Order: sequence, then structure tokens, then C-alpha cells
Amino acid sequence: MTRLWNRPADFADEMVDGFVRANGRWVRKVSGGVSRSTKSAEPEVALVIGGGSGHYPAFAGLVGPGLAHGAAMGNLFASPSAHQVESVVRASEQGRGVLLSYGNYAGDVLHFTAAQDAVRADGIDCRTVTVTDDIFSAPPTELEKRRGIAGDLTVFKVAGGAASGGYSIDDVERVAILANARTRSMGVAFSGCTLPGADEPLFSVPEGRMAVGLGIHGEPGIDETDIPSADGLAELFVHHLLNEAEIPEGVTPNGARVVPILNGLGSVKSEELFVVYDRIASLLEDAGITLVDPQVGEFCTSFDMAGVSLTLLWVDEELERLWSAAADTPAFRTGAVDSGALETVAADDTEDVAFVVPDASPESQESAAVVADAISAIQELLAEHADELGRLDAIVGDGDHGIGMDRGATAAATEAERLREAGAGVATLLDRSGDAWSDRAGGTSGALWGVMLRTLGERLGDAERPTATAVSEGVTAAKDAVMRYGKASVGDKTLVDALVPFADTLAERVTAGDDLSTAWTTAAAAATTAAHDTAGLMPGMGRARSHGSKAVGVEDPGAVSLALIVERVGTLLAER
Amino acid sequence: MTRLWNRPADFADEMVDGFVRANGRWVRKVSGGVSRSTKSAEPEVALVIGGGSGHYPAFAGLVGPGLAHGAAMGNLFASPSAHQVESVVRASEQGRGVLLSYGNYAGDVLHFTAAQDAVRADGIDCRTVTVTDDIFSAPPTELEKRRGIAGDLTVFKVAGGAASGGYSIDDVERVAILANARTRSMGVAFSGCTLPGADEPLFSVPEGRMAVGLGIHGEPGIDETDIPSADGLAELFVHHLLNEAEIPEGVTPNGARVVPILNGLGSVKSEELFVVYDRIASLLEDAGITLVDPQVGEFCTSFDMAGVSLTLLWVDEELERLWSAAADTPAFRTGAVDSGALETVAADDTEDVAFVVPDASPESQESAAVVADAISAIQELLAEHADELGRLDAIVGDGDHGIGMDRGATAAATEAERLREAGAGVATLLDRSGDAWSDRAGGTSGALWGVMLRTLGERLGDAERPTATAVSEGVTAAKDAVMRYGKASVGDKTLVDALVPFADTLAERVTAGDDLSTAWTTAAAAATTAAHDTAGLMPGMGRARSHGSKAVGVEDPGAVSLALIVERVGTLLAER
Repeated sequence: MTRLWNRPADFADEMVDGFVRANGRWVRKVSGGVSRSTKSAEPEVALVIGGGSGHYPAFAGLVGPGLAHGAAMGNLFASPSAHQVESVVRASEQGRGVLLSYGNYAGDVLHFTAAQDAVRADGIDCRTVTVTDDIFSAPPTELEKRRGIAGDLTVFKVAGGAASGGYSIDDVERVAILANARTRSMGVAFSGCTLPGADEPLFSVPEGRMAVGLGIHGEPGIDETDIPSADGLAELFVHHLLNEAEIPEGVTPNGARVVPILNGLGSVKSEELFVVYDRIASLLEDAGITLVDPQVGEFCTSFDMAGVSLTLLWVDEELERLWSAAADTPAFRTGAVDSGALETVAADDTEDVAFVVPDASPESQESAAVVADAISAIQELLAEHADELGRLDAIVGDGDHGIGMDRGATAAATEAERLREAGAGVATLLDRSGDAWSDRAGGTSGALWGVMLRTLGERLGDAERPTATAVSEGVTAAKDAVMRYGKASVGDKTLVDALVPFADTLAERVTAGDDLSTAWTTAAAAATTAAHDTAGLMPGMGRARSHGSKAVGVEDPGAVSLALIVERVGTLLAER
Repeated sequence: MTRLWNRPADFADEMVDGFVRANGRWVRKVSGGVSRSTKSAEPEVALVIGGGSGHYPAFAGLVGPGLAHGAAMGNLFASPSAHQVESVVRASEQGRGVLLSYGNYAGDVLHFTAAQDAVRADGIDCRTVTVTDDIFSAPPTELEKRRGIAGDLTVFKVAGGAASGGYSIDDVERVAILANARTRSMGVAFSGCTLPGADEPLFSVPEGRMAVGLGIHGEPGIDETDIPSADGLAELFVHHLLNEAEIPEGVTPNGARVVPILNGLGSVKSEELFVVYDRIASLLEDAGITLVDPQVGEFCTSFDMAGVSLTLLWVDEELERLWSAAADTPAFRTGAVDSGALETVAADDTEDVAFVVPDASPESQESAAVVADAISAIQELLAEHADELGRLDAIVGDGDHGIGMDRGATAAATEAERLREAGAGVATLLDRSGDAWSDRAGGTSGALWGVMLRTLGERLGDAERPTATAVSEGVTAAKDAVMRYGKASVGDKTLVDALVPFADTLAERVTAGDDLSTAWTTAAAAATTAAHDTAGLMPGMGRARSHGSKAVGVEDPGAVSLALIVERVGTLLAER
């Protein structure tokens, strides 16, 4: 379990500060994450990686000469926001194009893609290669749906080696795609991690048992067995990774060359890893495979989760050269990089450009005060339910929902209060609070709540007193935006399942002549019912696929939190 | 807890094999541990480090250009044997002298010193600098009694930097002594590790509490508090390490330059360490100290123990240069070493020279068979009590007693069986079994049991049928040898407390005319009583000092195991 923190909500920020402070030789802090503190002699294609925090050395520990140029650092187990990614890209790019690379999780895809769109609009040639190495997260027929685990490292290292070798963006993209196609991983877990301030682990595995294929945030695995011997685990790994269906296209195992990466997730220590590795090496060599530059240690962790994964990178001549090329980062160093000889880049203290609050009518200011109170109440509500939502999400998703919603609402409440005091109208207040929410929350739900608040604000404006009709129309617009943005429909077991009946009922009741408070309360009840109903649905396409049956019978945390929030707002409206 | 192993008794060997297999770029396996697999262009002073296993990357992970030349690898938490150290020294030395450096623990001192004596006898200029950085293991007035924890790294790195810089043995020794004098550490722990195959952790700290000053094997600390915030822990560390009595002689803190090493012991992960480091850096900078090349990570672990330590190395110009010099090892890399350009040394497959069993009389062979049976019974007895002895030792010592005795007796039993079959006499059988015991058990008790068996054998010879008088005289000689070798007296709470009454009673009863079995049984009863009495004594000088009161009221595990063994042998004698 995590034991050391100050305030759980400050943990991710303080971690970034301490990391940068300890590793100034390699990185400088930029808005949204870190970028190299050194400059190579010639401009390079910039490799920008990133993801949730809690996986050190992934991702920030891999920034430095020969590897990544920048890392967007989200909150704990939550994707960085589009704004964060964009900012790191701008701090890192050198005019030769940008490759974004990260593990394939819905939230990360959402935010990195939005950032890619934004920088492309400014003429930056930005490409993306997501990492999909976990063989148990989708069948071989759906490689593109697999999630990324410790295989991140092979794709990043090959792309970073290519960038530092002067490759063009086309060629960096080409070798990154090849490295991903040639990388397979599988993991097992014995126990889950407990996030800072949480009372219980994100997931647990019964004493003496081992979960097979479990994801790095506790996403469901495919099987559970007794803990095998060290040799038994080695055999399990090699058996699955040498399975015919998992040999990358064009590779003949006998005679092949492979980089093996035996990764400890946190609490399985080096001594145990070496015992397991000894047997893995024998088995691979017995299969006629030549082992190249083996790695045994911690490369992608999940706090102190007790787990192990094995990654195989099937190299050709070019991949082997790029994998082995010199690199010098806080956590991954190989070959001889004379970093002392590199030019240092000044730390970036860029402040956000000052925001001028637009004029607003007294009526809109009055509504803004009501909304600020509501956001503050939502913040209290979510702080109270953070743990419970996190546990729910650990069963069906990646465990970040509670902490993400809590952080998002806290940031939104602070921003809302600031804007209320500055005399902002309701549209401005919702727009800026939505930004704050999505920036701080990260993750899919952070992005969607940002969209909802901004869309609602847009409809209300800063001039008129919002009518029941305007609110209802704003909610409907928000619902439509979420469905477009999140690519989810009713029945996919996402917050859309609760949002659609809420928006539809609200519109229906307002049209029928109910006042806002009455209509909202009725709509909130519909959302609550629908949220409960998500427990009865099969997992769908709106999130990383959940293999196995754990997700069935469990409510979707996004739908549950939406229902809780609209219910709380209904109570507030009724009290006025 | 440790989860992955095959047979617990094979764990340490398999770990070495896997480690060497994964890290052939830096190390080759030699008898007793590892030595560099590369050769520097010019001969260097050889730095040989080592200690018990379970602390990775200490010690084998620190072998490579710019750091150590070899590491003697003992069993889990047990000193390597003198034979192991000697063998690694011989594989690593290059004609310019050898510096031995290791943490200051009684067992390590015993074995490394014996190895030093052995290689000095062959004209090798061998020196020793023990590391004594843990401020809570003895007061500032007794610096030389302190134990070594993560501060090992500073002494090793400075000495390794000096050796690779072409320093003479005098100068390597000088800077190693200076680095140790300039290094201070303190640690805290939240929970203990569970060794492979053990049912319970070596020690435990109550939920929500933190042990202050606890050693890396669970040796007693000085205090227990509630777990503080991350900032609170940083403040505790800095408060103690900037305490006037802990500032090294000749250093003025304001204006000083310090290398900070924030070390995780196993389950406290990077993210937490960075949060703590952020505050440590502020506090040190506020005190006018300049931070140089900070290190945040795992440098000296204790399997998956949840603990943290902070080490400060107060550098002068020379120390800073040597600390920062390039190094390239499996687990510590800094600056640019082009290891690819170094000449590779062939792996060393040295077999032990074949041993010819000396002739023995049929009477002595018959006695040898009795002794072999006894050693086999002792082995079964110790396997049964290993866990219990380990737990006892975790309270008063370093937790290695159970596993060490088990391994030692297992090796001795195998060797005894082999020699019985080869027709050895009782002296040869005891001598070789004693060697096997101390080689495989490591630790202080391993060395002492080796001494006892060999000394007893010496008195018995390979010709005569052993009489009761000869056995009694052999036991007395063994007792005298142990007291000389282990520098312990009765009352020091070591196995001497049980051995002396055993030997004295045996001599008394044999002189009085009792047969061996009767005399032995009476003597064993005296040993058992004396072992129980060790619980009533104050901790003394025969072991690393135990601050605090935990050791009082607990029996000494060495005395307990001796009593168990002589009692079991008594039963065997009575049954004949």
C-alpha cells in the first residue's frame, strides 16, 4: 500500500515536483509534464509519450537523450488531459515532426488525439502509434484493441533511437509501428496496490492465488490459478508468448533474436525476478531463440502491486540496432551518451496567459453564483464517494474514476469560486470550470465532464437569466456532444446510459410545463434508475474491452457518478 | 512477501544464475559470487564488495567499470563465507592490491577478515574499509560500531571511482575511509519482508505505525511512531541528519555540498519517494546546503520490506569528483562509459580441485558413520525449526539464523554422507562437513559451526576409536576456538552462553566416570537451561549493538539452536 503522502489530492503534483528536482540533469518541468532539459546538436523528430502517473519509470523516467523528448503526466492512473499533452508537445517539438506514443487506453486515446488535432491545426506534423502489447486484453484477431503494458518500453526505445539517429518522421513512425507489431507481453498479479489516501486496494487476489492476464490498473484477467513455482511461472509465460498465434507475422521462432523484458510491477523484487528469468532464458534458448540485451527489473509498475510481466520484442537488424542505441534518461541508461556535453535548456516557467473575465449581466452573474454553489456541492459529494467509485471502477475499468472525479470537481469548484468573485457570467463560469475539471481530472470521464459543462455554458450565455428551457436545451446539447466525443451509445455501459434518460426526461418534463426544479428531480430519478440498470448490461465498446465476466452485474462508475451528481443538484434546486 | 521460488534452499543459487545470465555484459560468475566480465585497459586496484543476498542492487548489481570489480554473494541475509570472499578476491585482483568494503555486520567482518588474512599470506596487499553509516545503530561516540545500510553505495562508488582513476591502493583506501567518515544514513520501516518459503515476515510493525532506525534485516530501531505525512518524514530525516553530533568532522553545513540518496527498501515506490524528496531538497537547501547529483530509487533493499532511508554524503572536491565519475554496472550507471569497447573476460568455470579422501582405520570409519547419522538428524531438526529460529533472530539479530543453519546443516549432511560412502575417518568427515557448513550457511553462526566441527574432528583423528575423553576434549577445544574466533564471553548473549556450560559439564561428567551418552545428556540439559537464561541477560558486545529494549527477554537464537542440536545428539547417543 501507499503510505507516504501529504494530501492525496496533491500527490501527483508533488510527485512531479520531486521527480524534476531529483532529475534536473535530464528533464525540466513544463505545463502538463516534463520535457528534456538538454538539447541535441541537430533538431530531431520529437517523441512525446505519457499516460497516468503511478507507473514509474513509465513515463517521465524515460525522457532523455536517445529516448523520449517529453512526457505528459496525468494524475494517478488517469490520462493526461488534451491540454497537458498539447503543452508538452509544444515544449518538445523541434520542427521535424512529432510522434505521440502511449498505451492503448480509451482515456489516453481521447486526449492524445485531441492534442494531435490541435497541434496539426498549427501545421505540426504529428503522428500516433499506440502500444498494444498485452496478449490477454483482446484476441489475436483484434490486435488493435489490446492495451499497452510493459511493451511501451520497446516501442518508445526504438522510436527514440530512430529519432536520435536522425530518422525522418515517416521513418520514426514506421519503426514504431514495426516495434509494436513485434512486441508481445503477458502479466500476472498476486495483489493490488492501494492508492494514496484510499482505504482499500484497487483490487485483490485471494491469498496464495495468482491472476493471469490482469491489467496494470487491475483490469480483469482471463484466469486465476494457485501461485506456481518460479519455474512454473516461467513456463506459463513462455508457453503463452511462443503460442503460434502470438508469433508476430513474418517471424520464425527458431533462429529468431528476441529482447526479453522481465518486469516487476512493484513488490516482486529483483531476487525473485532473477530466479524466474533463469528459467525463461533456458526455455527460450531451448526453442532456438537468441536472447539480446535482456532486461530484468522495473519498467512499468503499478505502485506496489505484486505482479510480473514478460515482454518479448522480436527484433530484426534495424530494431535491434535501435533498441541497443545509447540512451540516457532518469531510469533507463544504456551505452555511452555524454550528456554532460549537451547544451542545457533553461527551465520553462511559462505561466498561462492572464484570462480577462468577459462582461456579464447581473442576471447571469446571479445564475453563475447558483452554479458555483452547485459545483461546490458536487465537489463535497465526490470527495465523499471517491473511494467507492474507485473500487467500482477497479472492477470494470482502470480504477481511476473516484480519484479523477474528486480532483476534477475540486479544481472546477476552485475555478468557479474565483470566477464568481470576479463577476463572471454563467457561461464563462461553466466554460472555465469545465476546462479546470478536464485538465485536473484527466481520464475519459474528466474529458467528458469538461465537454458537458462547456456545452451547457455555451447554450446559457453570459447575458440572459437562464430559463428552464435553456437549461434543458443545454443539457441535451451536452448529451449530444458527449455521445459524439466519447463514441458511445445507450447500452454500452458508460455514463451515456444515465445521461440520455436524464436529458430526455428533463426535456420532456420542461416541455410539459414543469418548473426546472420539478423537471430536474424527475429526470435525476430516471438517471439513477438507468445507472442501476447498467449492472444488468453486457460490457460494450465504449471502454477498453473487459474480458471475462467480472464486469457483468457491476454498475458503471461513470453512470453512477452522473446519477449522484444530478440527484444532488436536484436537491439544491428544490431547496432554493 | 516473497512469492516466487522453486525450493527455498535453492533460491540464492538460482538468483545468482539468473542475475549473471541477464547481466553478462557486466559480470561473470566465479566461485563465491561474481567478477567483472570486462577488463580495463590498465590494471586497477580491485574493489571487492559483498554481503548477504536479498539487498539487490547491493551487492552484485554494483559490479562493473567505474565501480566494484567483484562481489561475494552470501545466502539470503547471511554473510558470504571466507572461502567465497577469498575466491572472488582471487578472480578480481589485478596485481595492484585489493580493497574489501562491506557493511559492518559481525558475520561479514568475520568472513571478510579471514579471507583478507588468507590472500595477504600470498602476498596480495589487501585492505578493508567497513561501512558504518546508520546513525541509529550506535551513538556518535562509537562510530566504528555502527552498521552499514544504503551508505554502502557512497563508499563503494568513491572507491570504485578512485580505482578506475588509477589511484594506488593507499589512496583508494584513503578516499574510502573519508567517504565513510562523510556518510550518514537513517532509515524507517513500515513492514518487514517474508523470506522465500517462510510463513511469516521477519518482523512486523503495527498497522499505521513506523519503526524509526530499524535495520535492513529487522534489527531493532530506537522508536516507533504513527506514520507521518511525506513532509513529516522528510523533516524527521533532515532533523536527525543535520543534528550537530552527526555532521562529519571538519564540515560546516552552511555552504556544504551534499549528495542525497533517498532509498526505497522494496515496497515504497518511486512516486512516494519523489514526494518525500521534494521536501527533503527544500529543507536541505534552506539550510544553505548545495545538492549534488541526487539519487532517488532503490539502492539497498531488503526484499519487499516497506521502508525508506536517507543517506547524505558530505563531499569535498575529490569526493565529488569520484562520486560523479562515470560508472556502468547492472544497476548503477552514470556518465559515459563505453563498455562495448572493453575487452571481455571469458566466463570462469573453475571447478574445485578434486579432494582425495585420506586413509582411515575401520574404527574411525565406524565412528564417522555415527557422526554422519548425527549430522543428518541435525539437518532434519534444523529444517523443522528454521522458521522459528529466523523469527527469534529477527528480534535480536539480522534474521538469517534459521535459514543459515538449515542451509549449513543440509550442506554438511550431504558432504558427510558422501564421505561416509568414500570411507573417510571421523576427523576427515568432520573437517569437510564443517567446511561445507560454513561455506553454505555463511553468517557468524555458519563460521562458528564450521570451526566447532573442524576442531572436534582434529582432536578425534582418523585412526583411533574416539573415547568419551577424546570427545569431551574435542568439545572443550571447540569451545575455546569459538570464544577466540567470535570474541565473545559468557553473558554476551551468544551461543557461547550455552556452549560453555555444555563443554564444562561434559568434561566434568566424563572425568567423574559417566559414559559418553550419560555425560552428554547431562551436559545438553545444562546447555538448554543456559539458552533459556539468555533471555534474562542484557544485550552485550558479541554482536552488533541492539539499541532499545526489544532484545531483553528474548532468547539468543544461536544459543537456542546449539541447545536443540546437542539435545538431539544426546537422544541419538542414548538410542544406540
